[in-house]
Amino acid sequence: MLKLEFWFEFASPYSYLAAVRIGDLGRAAGVEVVWRPFILGPIFADRGWTTSPFNLYPDKGQYMWRDVEREAEHQGVPFERPSIFPVRSVLAARVALLGVEEGFVEGFAREAFRAHFVRDEDLGSEEVIDSTLAAIGLEGSTVRARACGPAMKDKLRESVDRARSLGIFGAPSFVVGRELFWGNDRLERAIEFALSQRDVSG
Amino acid sequence: MLKLEFWFEFASPYSYLAAVRIGDLGRAAGVEVVWRPFILGPIFADRGWTTSPFNLYPDKGQYMWRDVEREAEHQGVPFERPSIFPVRSVLAARVALLGVEEGFVEGFAREAFRAHFVRDEDLGSEEVIDSTLAAIGLEGSTVRARACGPAMKDKLRESVDRARSLGIFGAPSFVVGRELFWGNDRLERAIEFALSQRDVSG
Repeated sequence: MLKLEFWFEFASPYSYLAAVRIGDLGRAAGVEVVWRPFILGPIFADRGWTTSPFNLYPDKGQYMWRDVEREAEHQGVPFERPSIFPVRSVLAARVALLGVEEGFVEGFAREAFRAHFVRDEDLGSEEVIDSTLAAIGLEGSTVRARACGPAMKDKLRESVDRARSLGIFGAPSFVVGRELFWGNDRLERAIEFALSQRDVSG
Repeated sequence: MLKLEFWFEFASPYSYLAAVRIGDLGRAAGVEVVWRPFILGPIFADRGWTTSPFNLYPDKGQYMWRDVEREAEHQGVPFERPSIFPVRSVLAARVALLGVEEGFVEGFAREAFRAHFVRDEDLGSEEVIDSTLAAIGLEGSTVRARACGPAMKDKLRESVDRARSLGIFGAPSFVVGRELFWGNDRLERAIEFALSQRDVSG
């Protein structure tokens, strides 16, 4: 079975743009998408960065917001620049990792991205996590309690370590076998590569 | 007349990938391409960088070389990772600026990019500049003498200042009116935008 790993960070605007289309693209192509929530903070910290490079380099940040606006329009999806950037994404990532185990990751991730990048809600808050879970029929406090236990904390640390070992330095990233693709605009390439590998293996 | 400014840096692999296709794409779309040679060094220096971010951040650099290799294959153009990176591009940029005035910039730039990114020649050397000029029927030492005079030195400084004022932070960049697009993978967007502006203005 072909697999495409989708490494995403809830604070990342380009991860939002990929998350809203990757499920349908993967299903249409016959490529299985494996959702891999992680956080970029520790990887940025390896470089001595204390915040997003889009904040460290304002010219690049200003460009990015305009580019995301244009790309969202091109994809036909709504987008509103969030008041908080980068939003604290640890809680959302832990909930999403629980969702990987329990089968609700795609639904949760899509709702969470929309709350933050369409309705400008603070995804770092428990209230927004709870309303996001409610939107997919889950009870917030129960899910959060499990997501904040030692198991999901360990999972998140392991995810970041695995991302590092794969050479991931930004989000979204796509991994097919040993091939790494970075950025929403490389999603089609990653899918093509996955399909070409299927052809090779017969 | 519609114009699309193509800001390129001779040391930049993605500038090579854009330079080999922008002329034909622009002519096919009916969009005039204005070639804008510049150098990124002074803009990187503004951030305290002494070399390319692809060297400062090896994980990003390693990814970039693989990505360029794949994108070149996708475009159907040859590519060889150069031994020197980033190559000293000041001389090539000055010659190209002379080429803007004298009408040989596109031919020179395409040959220069090929020398460096296909045949792994040191574009920082006078010998390679001369053989590149010879390939388009020009005499190296004569052209270099003019390119290294005070007029082209001033032009290059002005180009870098203009790039800064446009918010340019990387290469290639495309500017249409007040809209900035960054990266070889945004070239189609820049052309679409130029065409949409024509439609608006009737």
